[in-house]
Amino acid sequence: MDQKIDLNADLGEGFGRWRLTDDEALLASVTSANVACGFHAGDPATMRRVCELAAERGVRIGAQVSYRDLAGFGRRAMDVPAAELAAEVAYQIGALEVFARAAGSGVSYVKPHGALYNRTVRDTAQAAAVAEGVRLAAGAAGRELPVLGLPGSELHTAAARVGLPCVPEAFADRGYRSDGTLVPRTEPDAVLTQADQVVKRSLRLARDGEVTAADGRTVRVRARSLCVHGDTPDAVRLARRVREELTAAGVGVRAFV
Amino acid sequence: MDQKIDLNADLGEGFGRWRLTDDEALLASVTSANVACGFHAGDPATMRRVCELAAERGVRIGAQVSYRDLAGFGRRAMDVPAAELAAEVAYQIGALEVFARAAGSGVSYVKPHGALYNRTVRDTAQAAAVAEGVRLAAGAAGRELPVLGLPGSELHTAAARVGLPCVPEAFADRGYRSDGTLVPRTEPDAVLTQADQVVKRSLRLARDGEVTAADGRTVRVRARSLCVHGDTPDAVRLARRVREELTAAGVGVRAFV
Amino acid sequence: MDQKIDLNADLGEGFGRWRLTDDEALLASVTSANVACGFHAGDPATMRRVCELAAERGVRIGAQVSYRDLAGFGRRAMDVPAAELAAEVAYQIGALEVFARAAGSGVSYVKPHGALYNRTVRDTAQAAAVAEGVRLAAGAAGRELPVLGLPGSELHTAAARVGLPCVPEAFADRGYRSDGTLVPRTEPDAVLTQADQVVKRSLRLARDGEVTAADGRTVRVRARSLCVHGDTPDAVRLARRVREELTAAGVGVRAFV
Amino acid sequence: MDQKIDLNADLGEGFGRWRLTDDEALLASVTSANVACGFHAGDPATMRRVCELAAERGVRIGAQVSYRDLAGFGRRAMDVPAAELAAEVAYQIGALEVFARAAGSGVSYVKPHGALYNRTVRDTAQAAAVAEGVRLAAGAAGRELPVLGLPGSELHTAAARVGLPCVPEAFADRGYRSDGTLVPRTEPDAVLTQADQVVKRSLRLARDGEVTAADGRTVRVRARSLCVHGDTPDAVRLARRVREELTAAGVGVRAFV
Repeated sequence: MDQKIDLNADLGEGFGRWRLTDDEALLASVTSANVACGFHAGDPATMRRVCELAAERGVRIGAQVSYRDLAGFGRRAMDVPAAELAAEVAYQIGALEVFARAAGSGVSYVKPHGALYNRTVRDTAQAAAVAEGVRLAAGAAGRELPVLGLPGSELHTAAARVGLPCVPEAFADRGYRSDGTLVPRTEPDAVLTQADQVVKRSLRLARDGEVTAADGRTVRVRARSLCVHGDTPDAVRLARRVREELTAAGVGVRAFV
Repeated sequence: MDQKIDLNADLGEGFGRWRLTDDEALLASVTSANVACGFHAGDPATMRRVCELAAERGVRIGAQVSYRDLAGFGRRAMDVPAAELAAEVAYQIGALEVFARAAGSGVSYVKPHGALYNRTVRDTAQAAAVAEGVRLAAGAAGRELPVLGLPGSELHTAAARVGLPCVPEAFADRGYRSDGTLVPRTEPDAVLTQADQVVKRSLRLARDGEVTAADGRTVRVRARSLCVHGDTPDAVRLARRVREELTAAGVGVRAFV
Repeated sequence: MDQKIDLNADLGEGFGRWRLTDDEALLASVTSANVACGFHAGDPATMRRVCELAAERGVRIGAQVSYRDLAGFGRRAMDVPAAELAAEVAYQIGALEVFARAAGSGVSYVKPHGALYNRTVRDTAQAAAVAEGVRLAAGAAGRELPVLGLPGSELHTAAARVGLPCVPEAFADRGYRSDGTLVPRTEPDAVLTQADQVVKRSLRLARDGEVTAADGRTVRVRARSLCVHGDTPDAVRLARRVREELTAAGVGVRAFV
Repeated sequence: MDQKIDLNADLGEGFGRWRLTDDEALLASVTSANVACGFHAGDPATMRRVCELAAERGVRIGAQVSYRDLAGFGRRAMDVPAAELAAEVAYQIGALEVFARAAGSGVSYVKPHGALYNRTVRDTAQAAAVAEGVRLAAGAAGRELPVLGLPGSELHTAAARVGLPCVPEAFADRGYRSDGTLVPRTEPDAVLTQADQVVKRSLRLARDGEVTAADGRTVRVRARSLCVHGDTPDAVRLARRVREELTAAGVGVRAFV
């Protein structure tokens, strides 16, 4: 059996005095850490610590770039002009790169956060701006910088256009619509809270590339990474269970890069 | 004659809608650009543009790191714990590095801004923290990262201790005390506003390594760089005059790196 | 003749070290000052000073409320949930009220800034949230708090629904569409830069309640206030000319409250 | 018996997505709520909710004013010039006043937070600036605005000088020095974590006006309010116990205003 999948989670999502994610515990289960870069969360000292912990454990470090919106935790879509957005994305990646490299690793990929993630599923201009920001940072780093995102998203289209590798991901704990997009957080069925259901869905996504949408239809989802959320009370236990059951089912849990 | 000196100025000190420095015009005169990195000024789009302009003109790019204080323009000293300060410094350098490298250049040096500059003249703990942040970023970049600062400052002592090159600078338009430190901005005689006086002082600093202090005494100032300020109405004209008269006097105006 | 009109302009739009508007000079011409409240511009010390100057000159003080977006100067629309937006609006009004009252005056009206102004022309939910925030602040202040805005906007509809007085305004230096809305800043013809044209348009708006749209058609615009912009190089001179020519034409320039 | 004491705690110290204090539970025990005003913590929606809850329960609302420092949670002393600091203090009080009044109450007092609290114990200039900001806000509100603080502090001296009532407080869970000042948080013995000890100390402070300092000496502490901390895991239980045992001991737990 050579089935394998990456597990990614958002980490370092505190800010100063505030903590949200149990970074150390999550790093025991995930293979890719989406590290907040200071725009929606993530102060520099936290970024440094998470990078050190991730590097020690062999977990890949990704830049979780966001709108500049601490007050809204990056969950409020913003009409940021393309030139500003591209520069803001590159800025965040560069800032994280320092800590990733100082820890003996490097930024291995980029994944937009929250409203920027959702917006760039369909917004061509912002998708192109994010891709441009990643391309800029990849050129500066002298290495490939894959974009982790929703398969079929405008972001992936724009990223491919400028020569960036695209890694499709699926969500173990988010509701799907039958067109393969996520149920928005403002609607019911947006987030699955039952652990058994999340685990079962993870296995099916990893092995069969399928998920049942909110309307009951089966959706094909090709994914090289599974996202588990880090900011819920049960996040740590759930991530561990998903990893254990994937492993038990013969699915190799390995970073995509 | 092989006398030479570097001319440095603060650039990119706007933020979003606000502009302060005439970056394009100043880049015609200076050889080193201290680029604001977003903590006291400097939005990402401005950072990118200034780096592109500087790289085109062969002007060196330095990271002008600061306390996190947009409201105070980095001019209010802050008791930032060492671990936070080190990480904040590295964060800013990394963010600028993206734009400097994307422009075909790189961050060539680091200079603290405003209150952080003044504080680290004497504050051993903060000086060590800034040096630690620079060392972290230098390691990440895989290159030397000199610290531009006041000769004899605690910052230079701390930087030397961790193996960073130190470049001493002098101020053409700031008042000096007889111990070689600057007259604080809260006092009269802090800033020289007469162009003739600034130019004359620049020549004397570059050629003789001397300046007349506020109390009339002559102070020895060894400097490899002269700082001209960029945020005054006459900044552009003054920088040009300083450069022209230095050149006319046979002093080579060249970047220190 | 009892024709009269109010002249309003945005003031206090600096932040810390940065200045944008010549507040003192503008206060000699306008009758209503839209004072920035800290979210897109406007630090507390500036707010205090502008309130003192306005109160001395008998100019009315309005709260120019905005999205929380210093980096974008409040010009980037944001999907702020209604409860957050209402509270953010009230917060800003309350903050300004301190300085307005301390100066012997008070906040006399509210006008959204930039993207929030434009968004609430059509966005029912955000319009209702802004109205709710103003209502909250009006209740706290124990006085009426009119909303200055575009006639026919959703904001005015929402404001009227919760019992707030609505004051329609027109723009002397903005392009109009034939439906009475403004030409967006991203398009040509958005801003009129020729002083003569602005002055002529001001007179026609004040006396005849008409303006010529970008497509050449005549649009009826009922307005009790004319907005002149404060952040352009010629702003001060233009505001003075508009006032002088209105006065010369027999139109009384007086605050609407 | 007519012994009585106020119990105050810091509330609303989350920001956006982040929560710190269990506001609802704490409001069941305290008689005065120091509500964060947005500078070190406290987004507008949280401020509104806490004010509503406090007003419902008859708990007094105080403005917990701070340095502008979200990243440092207001725990990093800042050299803010007096004019800026005074305006920043007034700004925060005004912003909270909206929500307090809308909830049918009002801001009843002011207490500086964190580094500003500590700094104004000795810093005459900043103490005067804070007092000036409070005086400004009190004038605007047309009511007395007592300053809750350390007895003997420069802040109380400055407040008294401009006619503000001063309310001395003591700390149930902080170490004291024999001169009556608090042991800084950077030192051991700064915070008492044993519940029994905190309760015992509360009783002694309320009844006898005494506390045992870190060096074993007895210190006289006259206090009309006891501060219990809200941001520790056991905060809620501890506040309840303190209140219960004070009541059981015949000490009336009542707001000081």
